[in-house]
Amino acid sequence: MEERIEIITIGKEILIGRTQDTNSHWLCRRIIALGGFVKRVIIVDDEIKEIVEALNIAFKDKSRVIITTGGLGPTSDDKTLEAVAKFASCKLTINQEALEFVKSRYKYFYEKGYVSYPEITPEREKMAILPEGSKLLSNPVGAAPGVALKHKGCWIFSIPGVPKEMKAIFENSIINMLKDIIGKKFFLEKTIKSGIEDESKLAPLLKILAKEFPAIYIKSHPLHFAHKVDIELSFSSSGDEKEEVKRRIDNSINRFKELIEGKHQNHDGGR
Amino acid sequence: MEERIEIITIGKEILIGRTQDTNSHWLCRRIIALGGFVKRVIIVDDEIKEIVEALNIAFKDKSRVIITTGGLGPTSDDKTLEAVAKFASCKLTINQEALEFVKSRYKYFYEKGYVSYPEITPEREKMAILPEGSKLLSNPVGAAPGVALKHKGCWIFSIPGVPKEMKAIFENSIINMLKDIIGKKFFLEKTIKSGIEDESKLAPLLKILAKEFPAIYIKSHPLHFAHKVDIELSFSSSGDEKEEVKRRIDNSINRFKELIEGKHQNHDGGR
Repeated sequence: MEERIEIITIGKEILIGRTQDTNSHWLCRRIIALGGFVKRVIIVDDEIKEIVEALNIAFKDKSRVIITTGGLGPTSDDKTLEAVAKFASCKLTINQEALEFVKSRYKYFYEKGYVSYPEITPEREKMAILPEGSKLLSNPVGAAPGVALKHKGCWIFSIPGVPKEMKAIFENSIINMLKDIIGKKFFLEKTIKSGIEDESKLAPLLKILAKEFPAIYIKSHPLHFAHKVDIELSFSSSGDEKEEVKRRIDNSINRFKELIEGKHQNHDGGR
Repeated sequence: MEERIEIITIGKEILIGRTQDTNSHWLCRRIIALGGFVKRVIIVDDEIKEIVEALNIAFKDKSRVIITTGGLGPTSDDKTLEAVAKFASCKLTINQEALEFVKSRYKYFYEKGYVSYPEITPEREKMAILPEGSKLLSNPVGAAPGVALKHKGCWIFSIPGVPKEMKAIFENSIINMLKDIIGKKFFLEKTIKSGIEDESKLAPLLKILAKEFPAIYIKSHPLHFAHKVDIELSFSSSGDEKEEVKRRIDNSINRFKELIEGKHQNHDGGR
């Protein structure tokens, strides 16, 4: 039913704690909104060996989509496409369309006065060297194009790590391809205050709900122990039909309210 | 030389984009400050199969330390310890010390008025059911103890996902064990403004530096293309001796400044 989607975030700056990886969080939100579900996120160092291994891990688990972020720039620690080519056993070659794209971007940035010369240097050209057979994804913000490669039934989308560029490429190019892959799905989440201060008291109720509503994912959001804590509960589900998903969630919330009344009676000295 | 450290973040709430995983970022920062380096972060769903697979992936790559966060609470979607036991092929049993700990915590929370009864229910007891042979890590904030298990030379530290609890257990218990494992190391990072507006111009200089200073990790932090961009560069390195690391970083920064002057002359119409 569910197409496995994975994200690979690439960059030592994240692993040394310099940068918080907000990209994968943003992508998870966007993908769930499309009715997809990210099954795993792997954050790795910008080393070819590590990136290839992450791709192998994701691919082995039958992912239909792998999204990589980071490592597409002109500097030599940007190794994502080299790793993708190695993983998919294909050559890296200059992609003419990508070269035209990079040229036009630097021409534009030069005209705007953002860069000091418009010519294509080897470093700029590097961003047009793509795995053979891959498709360019236009970057409306930066100079490095995104790259889409289909490998044995799995789409690998590689996008830059700069959040603005990542988001723009996702919204412009990837979203429609993803919709085709995922199909028309609907995701809904509703959050309520449980009225309960303590997760251990919630647990038996959630167990009952999990059995009665297998298609609903219910998550309690524990806080620290304190006065007047009221643990939030979120109910989420996805499916083909909006109304169906909505009804299912409302039913489970109503059932929770029934249970909670019984529970409170038990513990607060009710029958 | 370097001990491989991995982090596994557990929780569907992260994969559906409800919660940003800030724990792994915080841990990366703390670990780099100790001179260690997190080699990979894997974020997985709270499913035993997924958690066991993540543990296998980390272990296979000869990690000396695996830190898991999340999935230690009283609700039945908290499955981390079950997965750790499965991974390490050991039994789950009531740990008496952990049970005393959980009891004392709920007694305390009851006395404070945070929970409505002090007794140990099956849900509360669950938090004292640990993989056989593991060691309790006291939790000064919440009710679920952290757990340390040594498996074939690899330390697995499991800590709750609530950031306050995660941090407290790390600072109180894990840090000293980690220092023993990592050894006395020193990490330093210095960030400078490069004076360059365009990564493609920086790239050849960084290539030279990478060759001349293999022990220094230099990262450019690209922004979008715009007027008056000045790309930041961070220089980082770790080693046994503070002075040695400091000197190495200063040398590489000085060398960068030399190079940049030559570069600017070339491009801005110098000799």
